[in-house]
Amino acid sequence: MRLSRFFMPILKENPKEAEIVSHRLMLRTGMIRQQSAGIYTWLPLGKRVLDKVNAVIREEQNRSGAIELLMPTLQSAELWQESGRYDAYGKEMLRIKDRQDRPMLYGPTNEEMITDIFRSYVKSYRNLPLNLYHIQLKFRDEIRPRFGTMRSREFLMKDAYSFDLDRAGAEHAYKRMFAAYLRTFDRLGLRAIPMRADTGPIGGNLSHEFIILADTGESEVFCHKDFLGFDIPGEDTNFDDVASMNAIFEKWTSRYAATSEMHEEAAFDAIPEGERLSARGIEVGHIFYFGTKYSEAMGAKVLGPDGKEHTVHMGSYGIGPTRLVPAIIEASHDDNGIIWPKGIAPFDIVVINMKTGDDACDTACGRLYSDLGKAGFDVLLDDTDERAGGKFATADIIGVPVQVIVGPRSIANGEVEVKDRKTGARETMTVEAAINKLVAAR
Amino acid sequence: MRLSRFFMPILKENPKEAEIVSHRLMLRTGMIRQQSAGIYTWLPLGKRVLDKVNAVIREEQNRSGAIELLMPTLQSAELWQESGRYDAYGKEMLRIKDRQDRPMLYGPTNEEMITDIFRSYVKSYRNLPLNLYHIQLKFRDEIRPRFGTMRSREFLMKDAYSFDLDRAGAEHAYKRMFAAYLRTFDRLGLRAIPMRADTGPIGGNLSHEFIILADTGESEVFCHKDFLGFDIPGEDTNFDDVASMNAIFEKWTSRYAATSEMHEEAAFDAIPEGERLSARGIEVGHIFYFGTKYSEAMGAKVLGPDGKEHTVHMGSYGIGPTRLVPAIIEASHDDNGIIWPKGIAPFDIVVINMKTGDDACDTACGRLYSDLGKAGFDVLLDDTDERAGGKFATADIIGVPVQVIVGPRSIANGEVEVKDRKTGARETMTVEAAINKLVAAR
Repeated sequence: MRLSRFFMPILKENPKEAEIVSHRLMLRTGMIRQQSAGIYTWLPLGKRVLDKVNAVIREEQNRSGAIELLMPTLQSAELWQESGRYDAYGKEMLRIKDRQDRPMLYGPTNEEMITDIFRSYVKSYRNLPLNLYHIQLKFRDEIRPRFGTMRSREFLMKDAYSFDLDRAGAEHAYKRMFAAYLRTFDRLGLRAIPMRADTGPIGGNLSHEFIILADTGESEVFCHKDFLGFDIPGEDTNFDDVASMNAIFEKWTSRYAATSEMHEEAAFDAIPEGERLSARGIEVGHIFYFGTKYSEAMGAKVLGPDGKEHTVHMGSYGIGPTRLVPAIIEASHDDNGIIWPKGIAPFDIVVINMKTGDDACDTACGRLYSDLGKAGFDVLLDDTDERAGGKFATADIIGVPVQVIVGPRSIANGEVEVKDRKTGARETMTVEAAINKLVAAR
Repeated sequence: MRLSRFFMPILKENPKEAEIVSHRLMLRTGMIRQQSAGIYTWLPLGKRVLDKVNAVIREEQNRSGAIELLMPTLQSAELWQESGRYDAYGKEMLRIKDRQDRPMLYGPTNEEMITDIFRSYVKSYRNLPLNLYHIQLKFRDEIRPRFGTMRSREFLMKDAYSFDLDRAGAEHAYKRMFAAYLRTFDRLGLRAIPMRADTGPIGGNLSHEFIILADTGESEVFCHKDFLGFDIPGEDTNFDDVASMNAIFEKWTSRYAATSEMHEEAAFDAIPEGERLSARGIEVGHIFYFGTKYSEAMGAKVLGPDGKEHTVHMGSYGIGPTRLVPAIIEASHDDNGIIWPKGIAPFDIVVINMKTGDDACDTACGRLYSDLGKAGFDVLLDDTDERAGGKFATADIIGVPVQVIVGPRSIANGEVEVKDRKTGARETMTVEAAINKLVAAR
């Protein structure tokens, strides 16, 4: 993408309304724009990051055996009356009447709808296990939306729903998703710690929140330091294998970790003092096993191998992509701006033309842009008329991992500078060497 | 994808509520499920097609120079009061009040919001031309939703919005999108004819509907037969070049074509009788140039090269992906089911194991599945326990372009059958020859 043809409205000033660094940087870099309280547009730069985060989530959901569909945003009130949550959900549910005066709602979550889909098609244990997910907008009418897309009203959620014949099957499903979440957050550059958590309005028997540590987190969390070093399940993980799933789950639940709602002072105090971690955290995922809560109320049953009807056991598993993006920024930035982890950055490489209009600079930039693009990189070429200082500041604040700087003096020797955004390390080399180095490091 | 692990609930019976073939086939094959009147879930098979259609739309939008963002579904009523459309829009607009009693609405389109975004960031002609698009859910509270996702209430729309300094610039933007639409529909296997059209509630001076001919179409259309043979702009089309855009536009508007609202009997009668086409059509795209209608009302101005303020000229450009999917089916099916054009099919190839559990069949299927997958194909392997006849019917109805049939008798000679879904042509060859043939034809 040539910056002269892109739409990336960088703000010169820090927006006053931003209380936390991710919100400030997302507004400054033109990633998002608030349309109404808690309702945001994802501008082109932000949309690129959001797409890449979604792609990672999707890959790991698919790897674990979950299947993607797409449920609508609007739901009929009837479904929620069946489960009993229509009245229970309170003011966070956005209730709507259509032109025929039928009561509807903007889905805050989809347990009811997916259970309705399940019961209408699946009649036999032979079709189990089943895990269906979608990445779809939700609306929760928060009384105090804040921190940009960290706590917004209209937000994107990946929500998966598992169906199993019995509790043992459902626990395997839960552990599959547990392992998939560990992989997902790791690929997003985050160390997320699964913590025992309250089940809230979803309900159920077993629940973990995945929390990343950050000073701006809304939750107070307590855990063992060992979590910082635990291994992440590899790409070759066999999610079908019960023993593997058990081993991962046991490892990652072998140490104390709890949010304040579930905190047990005595258990935490039993940890040697130097190994305790008491910090603030951001919830980036939440998984639930709730047995037959919805399947019972809504009649989701299958014939078992014994020829009898069984009410299915369910779980649900959420990740909020529109919250993950600011969470990643909270975890990865410096005074100059965002530092995107590889694979999530809006562009892989930014080529900075220090003197647009200079023949040698333009030619070298054109070659870098074209060759790196052909090699499969997402390249941003800063071909605008801005002065070099402004271009450097822009490249830093938007956090593209690698900068290739093309200036008139060095290009006279056929050389460019390659800068690593994270470490600040710079290296001077020929255009060809730069291309070869970047392609080799892919 | 192994069918035994996929979720594809094929219905045995034709659903009674379906009046047109696409609706019937989408329900039969488990592509969609109705949740409420005019509100659908896209089940996994349908979601795969929808994703591929969106990918084609996105590629062609990007190629033409448009930039993707993502606006929210809910909008504040205030914005629409500014443009004057809040009262004008009528009952199709879903009006909502949030917990603070603020009037909001589920966006039926985004002219107001994009104009608001534009005016808050763009102040100079130097940032023009600009075309911003998103692919986002819309809601229109149709009095009579019908034909499945062909006319639903919650639907997906790709809507692009162009901003230019003057009318000449806006006409170039209009013609860019005109050419992009020709390419898009062609890649989706459709012959879409641009027809002069009424501008409806969007308003404006110039408008074309892109119509495909189909007996089940809701519009009556009239055009010259020459449209069926016109060339589609190539991949190397230079969208920046005004002369190229003019040439394409002139060619494709050189013959009579109008919907019934804009029909002129006399002009149509002037066409020699054998060259007239009077038929029913499905609208698959609609483009508008409406000058300063919204920019004037909402104060979207830029400084021109003359140092003076200019109210920008705008256009908007819509395609409905959730309507395109059934439109493609209307245009491409036979008595046995859907016939997907290449590139849009939910899977590229289906490997049918006629006797799951038979060692030779299982081994050959495993190899085909693995090798074709590695070659980059989306492969569905029917490894279920169903009888062969049922598997053939399923492969036909879901419309995957190529079937590779592995049966115990032919595999004893090391052979499989390759069937073309569209022509019905079958060829027997070795497993290796089948793989080579399919990879070579990619």
